[in-house]
Amino acid sequence: MGANQLLAELEAIGRTRTGGYTRLAWDSATMTLREWFAGQVTALGLELTEDGNGNQIAWWGRGTDALLVGSHLDSVPEGGPLDGPLGVTSALAAVARLKASGWTPSRPLGVVNFTDEEGGRFGVACLGSRLATGAITPEKALALRDDEGTSLGEVMAAQGRDPRAAGPSGWLAEVGQYVELHVEQGRWLAPHETAVGVASAIWPHGRYRFEFCGEGNHAGATAMADRHDPMLAYAATVLAARELATSSGQRATLGRVVVEPGSTNSIPSRILAWLDARADAEPALEALVAGIVARAQWAAEADGTQVKVRAESTTGAVEFDHDLRHRLAALLDAPTLPTGAGHDAGILAAKLPTAMLFVRNPTGISHAPAESASEDDIDAGVDALAAVIKDLG
Amino acid sequence: MGANQLLAELEAIGRTRTGGYTRLAWDSATMTLREWFAGQVTALGLELTEDGNGNQIAWWGRGTDALLVGSHLDSVPEGGPLDGPLGVTSALAAVARLKASGWTPSRPLGVVNFTDEEGGRFGVACLGSRLATGAITPEKALALRDDEGTSLGEVMAAQGRDPRAAGPSGWLAEVGQYVELHVEQGRWLAPHETAVGVASAIWPHGRYRFEFCGEGNHAGATAMADRHDPMLAYAATVLAARELATSSGQRATLGRVVVEPGSTNSIPSRILAWLDARADAEPALEALVAGIVARAQWAAEADGTQVKVRAESTTGAVEFDHDLRHRLAALLDAPTLPTGAGHDAGILAAKLPTAMLFVRNPTGISHAPAESASEDDIDAGVDALAAVIKDLG
Repeated sequence: MGANQLLAELEAIGRTRTGGYTRLAWDSATMTLREWFAGQVTALGLELTEDGNGNQIAWWGRGTDALLVGSHLDSVPEGGPLDGPLGVTSALAAVARLKASGWTPSRPLGVVNFTDEEGGRFGVACLGSRLATGAITPEKALALRDDEGTSLGEVMAAQGRDPRAAGPSGWLAEVGQYVELHVEQGRWLAPHETAVGVASAIWPHGRYRFEFCGEGNHAGATAMADRHDPMLAYAATVLAARELATSSGQRATLGRVVVEPGSTNSIPSRILAWLDARADAEPALEALVAGIVARAQWAAEADGTQVKVRAESTTGAVEFDHDLRHRLAALLDAPTLPTGAGHDAGILAAKLPTAMLFVRNPTGISHAPAESASEDDIDAGVDALAAVIKDLG
Repeated sequence: MGANQLLAELEAIGRTRTGGYTRLAWDSATMTLREWFAGQVTALGLELTEDGNGNQIAWWGRGTDALLVGSHLDSVPEGGPLDGPLGVTSALAAVARLKASGWTPSRPLGVVNFTDEEGGRFGVACLGSRLATGAITPEKALALRDDEGTSLGEVMAAQGRDPRAAGPSGWLAEVGQYVELHVEQGRWLAPHETAVGVASAIWPHGRYRFEFCGEGNHAGATAMADRHDPMLAYAATVLAARELATSSGQRATLGRVVVEPGSTNSIPSRILAWLDARADAEPALEALVAGIVARAQWAAEADGTQVKVRAESTTGAVEFDHDLRHRLAALLDAPTLPTGAGHDAGILAAKLPTAMLFVRNPTGISHAPAESASEDDIDAGVDALAAVIKDLG
């Protein structure tokens, strides 16, 4: 089956009323997707393994210097259908086509479904690949909690996994290269009239938790001059983030906020908000975040409120392997482009040569229900990935 | 028992981890409080009634031209211990003391526990008194939904009430006057060194739902110039509300916001936020809200996003009955002060003479766990209410 047919099989899983998808790590939707992946690899005659972190890999042969392809099946809350699943379904479709053609690889080939790439449940992105590579310790990862207060360790145990098995993965030593196909995020390929591109680099990025503390009070009975309303510093921070990111050519977003007590007729006592910041280089990222924090503190002080900031996760710049990305760009006659989005390929790049293929997204919209790619472009992506596997494999 | 002892009996009901109280209409905490109220009035030898809206009234004699005293037992989310319960416990304590002294009223006397004064669950404040007086139709009220999507009608039915009985209440024709004792909100009595004050008026106020619509997208991969992020217009609205309320001497608060999808690495697609606005006169309130809406629309247009605003509830200015409030002020030798907060007494004022007593709040904090009054001032409030009942009853 082609990737379009495989994606159609996933249409109903984790779909929400808005037409988007909410498939968070270890929830019922991703558990169904894991079962679906297992069924697909069995049908292809591959050998399924799962490491102690929940990463599923389907092997066509075992040994050293394997070529790994794939992506992830989880989504952000209310995300689109392709971020993650396009890479997994394209890898399965490419392997199916190569098998059917009688081709066999000269080195082991793995198709991976990384767990919890989006970080939509526990707040840290690429948790599966971070654990596998040692970029995060299992102690720290297992203690992360979701919005219900349940830890990753508890969630894994509830799904029958042994949390003591989490941590650096043995399969990593068997892998020589990783190639991840992904739907384009942003809109670069459409004006260049190209269906497939090769990634050059991932911008450094970080997630920062802002805690604004003030004094809860009655919204009607408290004079404006007597207030210590933390919502005001939050609002100033939102506008500062936009201004500083725009003027520096970088990116900053506040997309998640929790207001306590969250009542219409109460001045808030505390606000938690998360800043997502990205820049084309690490010093630029540091300057951007420092500028936003300074503006937040300045606004809070003016209102007699407080703000505390801590980095929840930061990822340095990733330059994809020079030789590999140029080989793929030449093979596919494809342009190269940078990305502001993080990926498991960015995490694995610290350990082994990795590369990424992007499939054209006509609107550029991603992490939202409108995320899309044409059926023809999805087929072109499978063609490209099959060509890469034949070339490298 | 005195009001301090009665309040102590309620200490554990609906208490949250922060030390505040969440007692929302028809939830398990308010159901426990209803049972507690029923037990108290039985012990006092009063006759308990409940109307079709859930308002509990304990009667000492029945007939026409009754004097009604009381307040409510529900709270805002994470509210304080006194907003509502101080008025109910003070009324029970005053009646107990008068009964013990051998005094009997010359007219019927009722002690009321109004249901859902805060509107913390269904979004409309004073729902019990609004239904009783016809200020809201039962059709509209029963269709209101809580955050779980459950309607008031469904919630009442689940608690064994017949929603068809909701609507204008027969007891209203029996009542000649209503006096509500309440903890002070704001800080006016403390600098005036007085334990009890009499309300002169309630400011007009309203709740307005703002829906900011933009385009969900990837926080890392979307250039700032390509965004339609509704968070920016929301932030501009927060700051405009503060600026316009401050410069005009009125009050405006944004204390509740829901972000969709609410993910750190997603630009929001939609934001719902609620404005609470109050002013010393209706034209000033209209001007304040119009100014904030204009600034919201201006900000949204600049970002290529949209904002829609609708009033969820509005309440005109309430001038408490002239004769009654001056009689109480003279009787108690108490000052009069206006309030920015809404009350059931403000709703009943449209139908019959009403008055309010305020008990000193040393910090002025209300709708928050730190809301407080001293034990002596609580006793002084009961003294005042007992004097009022003897004078009027």
